[in-house]
Amino acid sequence: MPLVLTALPGFPLVQPGANLPELIWGALLQADVDLQNGDILVIAQKIISKAEGRIVHLSQVEPSKEACELATSCEKDPRLVEWVLRESHSVLRIRPGTIIVEHRLGFVCANAGIDHSNVSPPPGGSGQLDPEGWLLLLPVDPDASAAAIRRDLEECSGKRLGVLIIDSHGRAWRLGTVGTTIGLSGLPGLVDLRGEPDLFNYKLRITQVGVADELAGFPYPMREAALGELLRPRDQDLFR
Amino acid sequence: MPLVLTALPGFPLVQPGANLPELIWGALLQADVDLQNGDILVIAQKIISKAEGRIVHLSQVEPSKEACELATSCEKDPRLVEWVLRESHSVLRIRPGTIIVEHRLGFVCANAGIDHSNVSPPPGGSGQLDPEGWLLLLPVDPDASAAAIRRDLEECSGKRLGVLIIDSHGRAWRLGTVGTTIGLSGLPGLVDLRGEPDLFNYKLRITQVGVADELAGFPYPMREAALGELLRPRDQDLFR
Repeated sequence: MPLVLTALPGFPLVQPGANLPELIWGALLQADVDLQNGDILVIAQKIISKAEGRIVHLSQVEPSKEACELATSCEKDPRLVEWVLRESHSVLRIRPGTIIVEHRLGFVCANAGIDHSNVSPPPGGSGQLDPEGWLLLLPVDPDASAAAIRRDLEECSGKRLGVLIIDSHGRAWRLGTVGTTIGLSGLPGLVDLRGEPDLFNYKLRITQVGVADELAGFPYPMREAALGELLRPRDQDLFR
Repeated sequence: MPLVLTALPGFPLVQPGANLPELIWGALLQADVDLQNGDILVIAQKIISKAEGRIVHLSQVEPSKEACELATSCEKDPRLVEWVLRESHSVLRIRPGTIIVEHRLGFVCANAGIDHSNVSPPPGGSGQLDPEGWLLLLPVDPDASAAAIRRDLEECSGKRLGVLIIDSHGRAWRLGTVGTTIGLSGLPGLVDLRGEPDLFNYKLRITQVGVADELAGFPYPMREAALGELLRPRDQDLFR
């Protein structure tokens, strides 16, 4: 059976406090998409963050000494660096334009996933603040956000669904961003093929597939899962 | 328009010397798939390597001193390590079970992409050799393989096609393998959105999308490209 990826056209701009499951359900109806058991909704982190009001302003923090020092190395606004540090466990690498951190959510990414683009001032949040100074932080708990959206949409549809929240991440060694899972509910993050026989009865020894990170690998049987299973444990990590 | 991913069922086992475009064309007819302009064929590296006869045996090399030393560190057969070194520019990291190398093709991967699973002895290649000792190397020039397959299938179909050759790669920081492009023809590896305005007229400054690595990002306009555009130049690489 083919895997079909369908975009939802005309999705509205999302404001803080928006009821996302309601907006998604409306867009599904509008697009005449009839959800089936096993369907997976892939949602951009940005609209989750917006709905959850994760919009902050550069002027809302006082940069620490560490932030000021890092800001010099990476040639960024010290207040932005302060926000990056507040969203991170540790700094892995730094160079002009980029800080690679371990995000407080456990994954490694650039600039703590803080976004400048497609961010408009929150309603009533403009005032005298520099309109260019608004930032969008990642959701507080993307696994929980995914679970909540899934629950509501399963209730609307009466179907068993999966929800993936993805962000665009850069990668070591390769150019170009790729969609990367930062939260999930109802579908596996990894599928473990270890121990399965290959075509010639040779036992597969390594193959765990990062299915949530490569939707092209679907469909796989649905099950409970969370982001944690996709994160490489520190003691197995060669690149820190 | 939705993106539809279709598997070709019943694809035959591929032997050295096989005419892959012919096999693919036959499987397309069998599956009643009518190729359209802009369709992309995503082909596993393994069948390219098999068709190109990239099957070697552990006993066909004499391990060097370096290979023997590395073999102790990574707890692998020194002859396998010798094959890994012959396929690589340099060794980045080593630990029991894994050697991370820069492959001679330029990308970073584990064990030079050499495969043990789903490898059967080549016809007439068995003899007294240990049947467990066969290895499959990556194609000599996957961009060229992709271009040749594309040319033949465009001729059969009369349509403008893209061809991606993918392998399963592990990644820094995250568990699970993901399909990763090692050769391409007729479609972009990267799509550059830098300079495009966002929804609020804020100019995007960073976004280059690794579209060939995330087929979910398609469709994009077709154009000529090669693997090189997906590889992070050494002087921009933070993780070596």
